Parts: sequence; C-alpha cells; structure tokens
Amino acid sequence: MKANVLTAAERKTLIEVALGGLAPDLVVKNARLLNTLSREIIHSDLAIKSGRIAACMPAGTANWLASPVHDVGGRYVAPGFIDTHVHVESSMLTVREYSRAAVTNGVTMICADPHEIGNVLGIPGMRLLFDEARTVPMKMFLRVPGRIPAMPEWIETSGASINLEETRNMMDWAAAICLAGDINPNLLINKDDEQFEKIAAAIARGMTVSGQSPGLTGAELNAFIAAGAEDSHVATSVREIVENQRLGLRTIVAIRDDALYHPQLRELGKLIRDSGFDTRYLQFCTDDVYANEFVDVGHLNSHVRIAIAAGIDPMTAYQMASLNVAEGMRVERDYGSLTPGKYADLIVIDDLERVTVSATMIDGEWVFQQGEYMPGPDTFSYPEWARSTMRVRGEVSAADLKVTVSGTVSASGIAKKARVRSLAMCAPDGDMCNPKDEERFVLEVVDGVVMPDPQQRVSSLAVIDRHTASGRIGIGFVSQLYVERGAVASTVCHDAHNLMVIGASHQDMAIAANRVIANGGGYAVALNGEILFEMKLPVAGLMSEDPLPVVAQRIRELEFIIYEGLGAPRRFKVLQQMNFLCLPNIPNYGFTDFGMMSTVELVSLAPVIAVGDSALDHYDSVR
Amino acid sequence: MKANVLTAAERKTLIEVALGGLAPDLVVKNARLLNTLSREIIHSDLAIKSGRIAACMPAGTANWLASPVHDVGGRYVAPGFIDTHVHVESSMLTVREYSRAAVTNGVTMICADPHEIGNVLGIPGMRLLFDEARTVPMKMFLRVPGRIPAMPEWIETSGASINLEETRNMMDWAAAICLAGDINPNLLINKDDEQFEKIAAAIARGMTVSGQSPGLTGAELNAFIAAGAEDSHVATSVREIVENQRLGLRTIVAIRDDALYHPQLRELGKLIRDSGFDTRYLQFCTDDVYANEFVDVGHLNSHVRIAIAAGIDPMTAYQMASLNVAEGMRVERDYGSLTPGKYADLIVIDDLERVTVSATMIDGEWVFQQGEYMPGPDTFSYPEWARSTMRVRGEVSAADLKVTVSGTVSASGIAKKARVRSLAMCAPDGDMCNPKDEERFVLEVVDGVVMPDPQQRVSSLAVIDRHTASGRIGIGFVSQLYVERGAVASTVCHDAHNLMVIGASHQDMAIAANRVIANGGGYAVALNGEILFEMKLPVAGLMSEDPLPVVAQRIRELEFIIYEGLGAPRRFKVLQQMNFLCLPNIPNYGFTDFGMMSTVELVSLAPVIAVGDSALDHYDSVR
Repeated sequence: MKANVLTAAERKTLIEVALGGLAPDLVVKNARLLNTLSREIIHSDLAIKSGRIAACMPAGTANWLASPVHDVGGRYVAPGFIDTHVHVESSMLTVREYSRAAVTNGVTMICADPHEIGNVLGIPGMRLLFDEARTVPMKMFLRVPGRIPAMPEWIETSGASINLEETRNMMDWAAAICLAGDINPNLLINKDDEQFEKIAAAIARGMTVSGQSPGLTGAELNAFIAAGAEDSHVATSVREIVENQRLGLRTIVAIRDDALYHPQLRELGKLIRDSGFDTRYLQFCTDDVYANEFVDVGHLNSHVRIAIAAGIDPMTAYQMASLNVAEGMRVERDYGSLTPGKYADLIVIDDLERVTVSATMIDGEWVFQQGEYMPGPDTFSYPEWARSTMRVRGEVSAADLKVTVSGTVSASGIAKKARVRSLAMCAPDGDMCNPKDEERFVLEVVDGVVMPDPQQRVSSLAVIDRHTASGRIGIGFVSQLYVERGAVASTVCHDAHNLMVIGASHQDMAIAANRVIANGGGYAVALNGEILFEMKLPVAGLMSEDPLPVVAQRIRELEFIIYEGLGAPRRFKVLQQMNFLCLPNIPNYGFTDFGMMSTVELVSLAPVIAVGDSALDHYDSVR
Repeated sequence: MKANVLTAAERKTLIEVALGGLAPDLVVKNARLLNTLSREIIHSDLAIKSGRIAACMPAGTANWLASPVHDVGGRYVAPGFIDTHVHVESSMLTVREYSRAAVTNGVTMICADPHEIGNVLGIPGMRLLFDEARTVPMKMFLRVPGRIPAMPEWIETSGASINLEETRNMMDWAAAICLAGDINPNLLINKDDEQFEKIAAAIARGMTVSGQSPGLTGAELNAFIAAGAEDSHVATSVREIVENQRLGLRTIVAIRDDALYHPQLRELGKLIRDSGFDTRYLQFCTDDVYANEFVDVGHLNSHVRIAIAAGIDPMTAYQMASLNVAEGMRVERDYGSLTPGKYADLIVIDDLERVTVSATMIDGEWVFQQGEYMPGPDTFSYPEWARSTMRVRGEVSAADLKVTVSGTVSASGIAKKARVRSLAMCAPDGDMCNPKDEERFVLEVVDGVVMPDPQQRVSSLAVIDRHTASGRIGIGFVSQLYVERGAVASTVCHDAHNLMVIGASHQDMAIAANRVIANGGGYAVALNGEILFEMKLPVAGLMSEDPLPVVAQRIRELEFIIYEGLGAPRRFKVLQQMNFLCLPNIPNYGFTDFGMMSTVELVSLAPVIAVGDSALDHYDSVR
C-alpha cells in the first residue's frame, strides 16, 4: 500500500492548528496518553483536524484556538488497535457487522485477506467485501491473497482461480497493504515460480511479504525466509517465535485460547524481561474468529489483556497491537502512534490492564461512545450472484458418501474388516498451527461399506465439490474429532469451502448435506433422519447477513447442538477444528473433494489400506 | 530508494544453498553473531551466496555443501555499520578515500547528502560523487538534498540552484534513499510550498523524509512533524530526544565530542534502563567529520564505543548503528541484520565494547582484513571542470574587507568608536546544534575603519562570493571564535561554500583570501603579510585528492597553525566552528556574502549599529 500522501494544503492546515493559527476540529483533553513510541504514559491534550492529529501537547500547555473540547477525564487514550491478519468471512459476519465487533472492542483497522470468499467467488467476490468496507467506520486494508486456489486443481476444486496478472492488479487496489502469506510454505521452499513473481511484485510496490511457517525450523526456515517471507502468523511455541525472529521473521501471535496460550505468553514475557529479547517484531492478530467470540471474549483487546495477565509488560502488549503492526505492514507513517500527522484513530480505555474500551475514534470522529456504536447508514447489500453459490450436480445420497470395498474379497470370502487411514485432529484447541496427523484403524465392513466407529472415535468424512457441479466427492474418515451420532454438514471448509460433512450415519450425512445445498450454504445438523438445526450463510456460503448478536447466538446454538445433539467431544473447539480439518495448507494432511491428501508430498491417499477377514491376518492391498 | 528486489533465480539460489543442494560461495564459521533482531549473541555459522546471506545456523549444525570456509575463531560478527547522515565532502576526502576511512572502521554503508558539492557545482557535481562511489567497496546511498541553495538568493549566493523537478529526478537515481532534511525547519513551519512538494514526492516513492530541528520544542516541533519530517539528526539534549520521540521523530545522534556527549549519553542510558524508553527510534550518524578524526578516533565504531562506555547497553548501541538505521531509512529488507536474504555486509569484532573492527565484508567479499584494506582499482578521476571552481571578480584588497564609517560623523566630529554587532560563536564544541548568537561591542574606529579587537575576542569577518564573480563581499565581525593575529581564509564555508576569511589584520585577510583564490580553493593562513600555511582543496574547493593519511596530517597541521600561529582559542574546535559559523541554516544567525543575517527573520543585519565619539554617549544610528 502506498502511504497516504498528505497534500501541501493538508499539511499546512495541520501546521496552522499546531501553531495556534487555526482552530482544531476537536480537542481531546485530559488524556493519559499511551505513547507507543517512547513507552510512556503522559498526561496530554490532542488537537485533531481533518481526521488527523495536528498536535499533542502536555495537558494544559497548548495554546490552540477555541474549539469543541472532549474531556476524557484522565482516562487512558491509546492508538486504535490494528489487526494484522484477519479473515472477515470466518466470523460469518458481513463487513458491516464485523466493523461493529471490531470497533466496540477498540480495533480501528484490520488487514483482511479475503481468500475465503475469493475461493468461492473470485475477484468479484473479494471486491464486494471492500466495497462494503467503504460503508463502515472500521478501516479495512487488503492482504492480497497469495494463492487462489490454495492447491493445484488436481488436489482440490475451488470456485475461482486468480492468476499472476490478476494478483498484481489486486496489489494496485487502493486498499492493498501486503501480499498475504496464507500459502503452503512448501511452495516457496520447493521454488514455485509464480510465488516468486508475486513476491517481487509486492516488494516493488513497497509492500510487506507476509507468510506462515508453522513448525518450520532449521534449514527449511532459512529457505523460507530467503524466499522473501517477512512474517509468520502461526508459531507453535516460544522456541519457534525465537527462531523466527533470530532469522528475520516477525511473529504475529494469534491467541486462540486464553488457557492454552497462557503458559506460552508467560514464557515469552519471562524471555523479554530476563534476556532483553527485542519485542518490535512481535504483533497480535485474530485470524479466524467467530462472531460469538467477539461478543463473549473480545477482539484484539482480549489479546492485549491476556498477554498482560500472563506477565507481558502492558506497554509491550499495546505496542504489539498498534505500533509493531504498523511497522510490520509498513504504514507507520500513518498509524501506530498518536503523533502529529497520524490519523486520529484512537481508543479510550478505562482500565489499562483489563483493556476496557469505552470509546473509539476513527479519522477524528467518535464511532463508539457510551456503549453506543455509530455505524453510519447501511447503504450496501450483497447482490444475488453472491447469494447463490451452491454449484452441485444435485442432491447427494447416502451411497455417495460411503467408502465401499464390495468389489474386493479376501482369501476367505467377503471382507468383514478394513484397515483405513483417517485424518486425525489430535490437538483439541482449534489452533491452526497444530499439524494434522494420519491415524489407522480397523473398521467393520457391512454389506461392502466401511462403517464409522464412534467407539474408536472415528467418523465418516466427505467433501463434496460445490463449485463446478462435477459431482466429485472425496470420502474417507476423520478421527479424534468425531460425532457419536447423526451428522453435521457445512460450507465453511477452508480454503476452498466445498461442502463438508462429518457423520456417524451415512443417511444423516446425506440429509444434512442436502439441507445445506437447499439453503444455499451454511450449516445443518441431522440426527435420526431429521434436521436438528440449520444456519443459513447466504453470502458465498460463508457469511450471514444478520446482525452481530443474532449471528453470535446462532453460532453458540450450533456449537451446543454439535456437542449435545451429536456427542462431539467437548475437549475440542469443535467449530474451529471442523474448519481447519480439511485445510490442505496446514501440514501434514488435508481432506478435499479428491479425498485425503498429504500436504507435504501433494499426493492423495486412498482411505482403505487393506481389506480382509475379521483378523486381517492376510489381506489384499487395494492400492 | 526502492528495495533491491531479488529475482526468482536469485531467491532459488539462496534457497538451494540453505537446503544443502548448492554450495555456498563462502561459509563464515564459528562466529559469535550479534543478532540485532533478537538482541542475543549466538554461536553461529553463516552461508553466503551471491553477496547475500543464504542461511544462518547454530554453529556446527548446518548441512551445507562443501565450500570455502572462513573460521573467525569465535570472534564477534555484527552487521556492518550504516551511517544515516553523512556529508562526504566535509571530510575533505574523495569518496575513494572516504571509503577507506569508513570500511576500516566497520562502516559498510553511508547515506550521503552531497549538498556541499551540490551548492558549488550543482547536479553534475553531485553526480560525480556517486559515479566515484561505484568504484569503491563502501556502499553510498543518496540523501536527496532538500534545498540547494539553502537560502534564497537575496540572502546568500550559491554556485547552483536545484529546482523541484530536478529534485524529483534525483529521487529516481538508483542510489536515492531519502529526502535529506538539512533545511531550515522554519521553511516548513512557515509553510514553504516547494518543500511540501518535495516531501510528497519522497513519500510517494516510499522514501523517508529526513529533517533537522535543533532546539525545536512544543508547538513548533509539533508543526515541524506535522509537515512530514520523520527524523532529526541534531538534538541538543536528552530532553529534546525524548520530546522528539514522543512526537514521532526518530533521533539520529551525532557524537561530535566524547567528553561533551558523555553526560548526555549517560543520561540517555539511565532513561532507557530505568523507564524502558524505547530505543528503536535512536540512531547514530557522523554528519560532518574531518579525515583526521577517522584516523585518530574512528567512524561509527567510536560512536558505539562511546555509547557503551557511557552505560548504554551494547546491544542497543549496535542496533543504533545498524538495524535502527535500516528501519529509519526503510531498507530493513536488505540491511540491518544478518539473516537470510540480507546483503552479506558484516564486520568481525575482537572486543565487543571497544568495537575493534578486524575485518569487514561487503556483498560477501572481504574488503578489509588483517589490517589491509582492499579498495579495488582506482578508475575514477575528477574532471577539470570540477577542479576549477573559483569564480571571483579578481583579487581582493584589504580595503574590500573593511567595515568603514568614514562617511559618518558624530556630533563632536570624526567618529572614534562604533557600536557593532558580531556573530558570536559561544559554544566551543563544534556542535552544529549550538545556536549562534549576536553580541555587541564598542570597537575603535581608525581612519574611518572599524577595527577588530583581540582583547575583546572580536575578529573581522568577510565572506566573498566565489560562485558568480559578482564581487560581492559580506563584511562584519565575529566574536568568541577569533584570532589574535593574522588571518585564515577558507572555501569550506557551509552551505554555499563561498570564500570566508577571519582575521585580526585586514592585510593578512586579503593575502590569505587571495592565496585561496590562486590555489583554486582550500585553506590559507597568513601572518604579518606572509603565507604561513596552505592546503589546496581542488575538487569544488572542498575536497583533496590526496590519500587519507596525507589529508589527515594536513588537517592536523592546519588546526595547529590556527591555534599556535594565529592564537585562536584552544577551547574551540576551531575548524568545525569555522565551518558552522556562517551556516545560515542553524539558528539564530548566519553570515553570508550579504553580511550577517538573522536566520529566524531572514533579514540581513548591518554590522554597525551606531558610531560616535569615545564615550558613545550620543550617536547617530546608521541604519
């Protein structure tokens, strides 16, 4: 993104205000200002003009011309939080409602990679989000998607494909801020030419090259950084953060779970205190967060709060959500501190450590105050083409979702058992950086069909192409994250967002999948042949058009139904894990409409390894 | 400056080396690596390929292919120092010899504002420096001069004038890195339109807007920063550094005198330790340094050493000379740390706190090792037009340099006294950020000529236009910095570099000035009608073509002669002070070929305030 170059006239206006020759639009008075540059809290007054800070003076010392004054009564004032790395669609909210979630939690600006809707609707879909963003208070910058589709078309079917030239064009959108790095690091390490062209194009435009490298270490991490990556938003441990930073990679910490991250943040805080580890390369982001979490926990303000509670110095925590992000995204000329010439994007905080945001200002205008959010007029609506995105061959049947071995016989006759591989979601925390594993089970074969087995924590899994109406369905198994009964289907299935269905019953799987198809996308839960719950996500099959509180409540209900109705294990953050289950970008395995695949070797793996009799003591390989 | 975008082929090469599939050009082994990003010292090995770091691994852990190995025996290895703000011409060295001074002291890159030669020879002169720079190991980036001439043509005569369009063109030179801010801050505060255009052009190119704001505070500092300035290389106190940083200005510390700066650095170190003041905005530069100082004291290595000795944490001090500079100049993608993809510009240090540089590598090649500097072939020479730059009307006479009041009589007859104003150089330390003052004296009038008076520490001062042969000579007086006898003349006279002469004798002043004219520029010292010493500076009247040791020795001699031969007060760093004496950019007064001027009000001030009889109890104003 090019810095917003102030014109001579704009600069002169700010100068005049600072010198006392022209009245500010507003004076924010009596603030305990968090100075993110000097790491001090200073009792200050701020003069605001034309949406920017014109001057900042010690409280009571300025000689500005008379103007409206807002006395914040000694409360803390900090730069608005900036979220480095966000996928708005993952909230299931429109941008309009996302803005509400952000602004009321002190977030004035997000950097959004629209690759969820991009994988469904391509550039026109991504354009929609940014058109909508111009109608809301929150600022939304574009992380230009690094790769749509995420995977080659023989690995996964996507709704769109963005070529190099189109990617370059997106870099010239006014909102473009960086090249997003939600791409498989192996593409860089394995020297994919197109990625290097994108990186060169980004650097030529002065843009940051964002990356992700969960678990990458040693020689491979060196190779990844030499390829041009400048940050990683997924680190699995403090050790990884340290290695990243030693080698030049900024780390963007997404706190997905307070309890889970607490020990890591404590360790990080101790490292900073004890060894003087430099913190300028550390940032926060939320990445994929559901609407209800914004309501129940918060946005970046909760990251700052959790970090402080874990022993990270408050000033450092605030820097991680403002100045450090601005520097990482190379927009520190306009953002990250409340100093002359910067945008007047600021928040008022009652309690520094609890990060209770009582007011938010963007471009010099209060947009959240005294509990009231002021979104401005609702002038945007999604067109019909963005609301009808289910391109399937037709209804699916239970038979379509079954792994069959009917054609294969063992030496002793009809096969009664099958040795299968399943996609194992081992870590329960919904953290994208947890590698997925392969597990193997022996399952019963009934009438030639390999049956899921809740006793062994194994469900059937299917992913149905919903973009090209090819009728292609990848079928197989998922373990650890499973359901005891019924089925759940969803079009939220990163990154291609095909129609995924998990179930203990093939019949319920088909019922749930067909309801989602009929609804034009969203979630459906089926049990014993009936629909237990449904949630429509009309926009691209990803986003609801309902207000934040409604969407939040629906998501809570959905989660409750999956736990209580289907018996999914409580130890999993079930919606997050379902979303990341298929994601082929996160090693080491993914699941697509082509079935299970190794994301390291980029080959698909058949679900059935062997079939045989009850002992499986001799069998024929089916592949 | 646009970042140096690596091609796909270059990236692939680095990746291959990191992964062990391609041999490095060189392995630097067994290094105690100063990691400027993590603030750690880590026992490491570095793989270097095509002038860049391909990989950095804990010592002994890499599986790189066999290649030449340089074992540094556990010595410290740090990123090469980067000097943010330099005027090469002030060293009186050619770029070739400046490179020697830099590289042997661990400086691998400088950001040079060529406005000294630019004021004499315009763009062709500046081009010469950068042509020469391409023939030396040291990297030299261009700080695009902010204003040539520094002052309007009715305030000072310059040898060249660079317009807005030409300035924009310079920003597109390959070496361009920032808009230099050696301009009077009042131009911004007073809203000079052309400066805003230059700032906008710089920002549009992703370049840093550099500034200087000595002593500026409060409303005016706010105005200066709102105008677009991002750093200041002249701060007069720690209080000023703190205020700068609070308001968004990076501070570039030029340590001009160890003893002088020690208390300030101690104070700064204490602030950092006690209050956690953020250090990322702090940088070092040398600005104007003479050849002999590089030999006798050092370059940026001495800044780091002095800072450490004053109690600043070593890692912070090294960051101030590398990473922080790279960030401030927005080239942190290529410089400032030794991590994959960065240039292999590094130094080997024997003693971390004394900063003893035993080897220097640039672009993966050793250019200084075991006491030997390897400058490469000397293929550049200055053309004749750059070596004949004295454009004067002819020889000057003693009469030309005299302030006369012969036409003015007092009530009691011929005037015997005059009340004069002099340009007072009050601070003895050669620090550019010391404001100059006006002092008033009563001087004797002899035959209508107002005489200098060593008893009162007042000398005659003249500045002769040497650019347009107009014959214009500004005459008046200088105090505190004076000579007891004889005269010294020089074409090193910031920023227009006219011919300045200071003397106790008008006759010696004329002799010294005429010798400098005859020599085509440089210094001359005259006493009792004879030349005591001369030093030719043929290139633009600013630079010698002699080698570093020769120039250093000549400067030492020059200084000695001015102290011992002319009786200049030892408490002054006499050469530095002579250089800054006239500089109209540094408040509050300057002295040009138009005479003494107020740099705040931009008006020239007559030397004689009043003339009268011996008591001056009644007098006629002459102005």
